[in-house]
Amino acid sequence: MPHRYFTRELAGGQASLTGGDAHHLANVMRARIGEQVVLCGPDGLEYTGTVTSIVPGRVEFSVSEGAPSKAEPDLAVTLFVGYPKQGKLEEIIRHSVELGVQEIVPFFSRYCVAAPKKEDAKNERYNRIAFEAAKQAGRAKIPHVAMPLENFGAVCRALAAYDKTLFFYEGGGEPLRKLLTPGCARRLALITGSEGGFAAEEASAASAAGAIPVGLGPRILRCETAPLAALTAAMLLTGNLE
Amino acid sequence: MPHRYFTRELAGGQASLTGGDAHHLANVMRARIGEQVVLCGPDGLEYTGTVTSIVPGRVEFSVSEGAPSKAEPDLAVTLFVGYPKQGKLEEIIRHSVELGVQEIVPFFSRYCVAAPKKEDAKNERYNRIAFEAAKQAGRAKIPHVAMPLENFGAVCRALAAYDKTLFFYEGGGEPLRKLLTPGCARRLALITGSEGGFAAEEASAASAAGAIPVGLGPRILRCETAPLAALTAAMLLTGNLE
Repeated sequence: MPHRYFTRELAGGQASLTGGDAHHLANVMRARIGEQVVLCGPDGLEYTGTVTSIVPGRVEFSVSEGAPSKAEPDLAVTLFVGYPKQGKLEEIIRHSVELGVQEIVPFFSRYCVAAPKKEDAKNERYNRIAFEAAKQAGRAKIPHVAMPLENFGAVCRALAAYDKTLFFYEGGGEPLRKLLTPGCARRLALITGSEGGFAAEEASAASAAGAIPVGLGPRILRCETAPLAALTAAMLLTGNLE
Repeated sequence: MPHRYFTRELAGGQASLTGGDAHHLANVMRARIGEQVVLCGPDGLEYTGTVTSIVPGRVEFSVSEGAPSKAEPDLAVTLFVGYPKQGKLEEIIRHSVELGVQEIVPFFSRYCVAAPKKEDAKNERYNRIAFEAAKQAGRAKIPHVAMPLENFGAVCRALAAYDKTLFFYEGGGEPLRKLLTPGCARRLALITGSEGGFAAEEASAASAAGAIPVGLGPRILRCETAPLAALTAAMLLTGNLE
């Protein structure tokens, strides 16, 4: 299997790698002119790149036409996740990226234990984690971790952008197996809570904003388990886990 | 919701709690004669226990007829999991217990990084973790973590006890959605690998022992993510996550 690299420098049939990736390809992999690698472009497509030039710190390529990656699901899932205690969010990001999430949007809500603190620096770190996880998982797109939303009202206002929103709430509702089928949505939002769960008013607000309340069964899942179960279910039932 | 306690002392319409649980119920919850709690018996059934006596270190109950818990799935899933590096197995145990596993059987295999070391003491710790997770998740049964199997041959020899075995392997196979349906098995085995994955001979041996090879999609899941996705899928597709 050819090696894979993400690059933002890709346009007009040409591409380049710089920095650590260029070093890795030139000096660790000892690539030669004419060798091929897979380049994942900023458009989320995969390209075959043929090495045309190697100079210290820079490798250049001619590239084929881009094609959608088989590693990417056919629906874009955004995970809105109640901000958990430090550390748990990082594990949620890693797992979610492997499972195929497109975007992760942490939010603060009534019963959050966590409070906003140095979120700029944390967000940089979260996106680095997402990038590393995307590389390891063989993704062609780098999922984005958004800056946290200040409250649950901001989550509700964001929902208009999605075809379908599932709100994971202990109250339960229709079985997931009925709600999710192949092709049922192009943009799907999943909302899971923090350690403290949701206030009743938040559940009402979610419903008013068009979210469908759903449960994850009779066992109590921790706030770091629920998003993984929700995302696995979404990928599985839409045919994106096979 | 009444409090829930696990007890092994339950027979003939009577039950008791001792030690920490008795202290919690008597001194923290300040229970009185005649109050009711839910008792989870050693048979995995739930009982309503009515307090008949409170003395230091011991609470006694009369108990109703036992009933299956709604928190328990209608199929018994055993997770055979390739022994990962320290710490990951503990997280797999926690997640799996929440998701409804009945038994976890770690095993060593050709490409395992981990090697057996002080497994008696570790097994005690793993079972404590499973017990705590079962309490938190509202389970009525305490899943068991077995002593690790020495090699993959021992896994294969254990498979005769299951109606159906799914072997999660990068080669993939039939979609999970086709293989798992409500009522498809009473005893289901899931096999996932360690960091190093499986040797080709191990995959052949699993097939020869009746295991069905299945994939978890085109993205590469870490060894701690795959069992959670596999278990979520099994519970979801058999109707046990709603």
